[in-house]
Amino acid sequence: MKTATEYLWFETKKRRELINITERVAAFVEGSGVREGMVLVSAMHITAGVFVNDHEPGLWEDIWQWLEHIAPARADYKHHNTGEDNGDAHLKSLLVHHEVIVPITKGALDLGTWQQIFYAEFDGQRRKRMILKVMGE
Amino acid sequence: MKTATEYLWFETKKRRELINITERVAAFVEGSGVREGMVLVSAMHITAGVFVNDHEPGLWEDIWQWLEHIAPARADYKHHNTGEDNGDAHLKSLLVHHEVIVPITKGALDLGTWQQIFYAEFDGQRRKRMILKVMGE
Amino acid sequence: MKTATEYLWFETKKRRELINITERVAAFVEGSGVREGMVLVSAMHITAGVFVNDHEPGLWEDIWQWLEHIAPARADYKHHNTGEDNGDAHLKSLLVHHEVIVPITKGALDLGTWQQIFYAEFDGQRRKRMILKVMGE
Repeated sequence: MKTATEYLWFETKKRRELINITERVAAFVEGSGVREGMVLVSAMHITAGVFVNDHEPGLWEDIWQWLEHIAPARADYKHHNTGEDNGDAHLKSLLVHHEVIVPITKGALDLGTWQQIFYAEFDGQRRKRMILKVMGE
Repeated sequence: MKTATEYLWFETKKRRELINITERVAAFVEGSGVREGMVLVSAMHITAGVFVNDHEPGLWEDIWQWLEHIAPARADYKHHNTGEDNGDAHLKSLLVHHEVIVPITKGALDLGTWQQIFYAEFDGQRRKRMILKVMGE
Repeated sequence: MKTATEYLWFETKKRRELINITERVAAFVEGSGVREGMVLVSAMHITAGVFVNDHEPGLWEDIWQWLEHIAPARADYKHHNTGEDNGDAHLKSLLVHHEVIVPITKGALDLGTWQQIFYAEFDGQRRKRMILKVMGE
């Protein structure tokens, strides 16, 4: 059995950003030497998400509008009594989740044709990180 | 350590359908010979979901009404500028997620009494697939 | 390769409760002897959730208000024709999901600074359980 771990760092220019990380995850998996297994792709912050969807800018706009509709930025979250202003980012993270598991087959990510892996930053403009953990043989 | 992989194919008659796949996943796990581990059950499309819930038709109606309320089919998604008409299916997939991990104990799926695994088709009437990946010993 | 399994039991006093289970998961992982791997933390009921977020009581209030807004308790769910009254609990479970995978590095949970693991009870006041399954080496 083999395991391997890597941390990816992000510091987005905008507060909210989607970043396609498929190539970075694929390169890490190929370098790990694991032929059959899984890779966990998980944000290490509670104001970011990770999901699998389509590399299509129109869809990204739809996703942002939808997230803002379902979990809007508002002034009156109780969480803001701590001095924070990112209550919406916590709810957006709950909604899309902070991690995915991607299967590895024959030494590569076993994704469908249109599946791409995204890091979703909901409260950026500062250094944040994610963990990649491969397990397999 | 053992791994095993299988692909399940679906071609639903209706555009939106829920399919209980628990028996198929259980049979695959039992055939794999893995006694202790996990099985990843993951859609390979970005317009389908996988979740664990109850085998109860009234609840399924509630789930469909709820999904349609939260992520409605609409004409005006930006994604539709590509010629697609399935923007809602992408959002529904984000909402319920495209995968689950089910524990394997003593050679069988270790599910609670009422837990069943569902494939949720949000844009069907064409051939689509899912991956099952077992890892364990 | 090593695996280990434990079941945690809950019986909440209130119908809806959030319980921080990070310490219990951490103790189980440390006792398992696994140095590199993953732990699956999964509710065995379809009216409960598991998620990773912040240990901050104001935020918990925001989360409860948000869940009640998105998946409200209502009398008229079809599921209630079975005699149940917990339709909202099923939808809340779908929304936040019933499981997370946490990476294990150097023998400990590899969580970000603010990441804590929560069991979310949506229909409690009775005995319910969760599974912890460690896999690694």
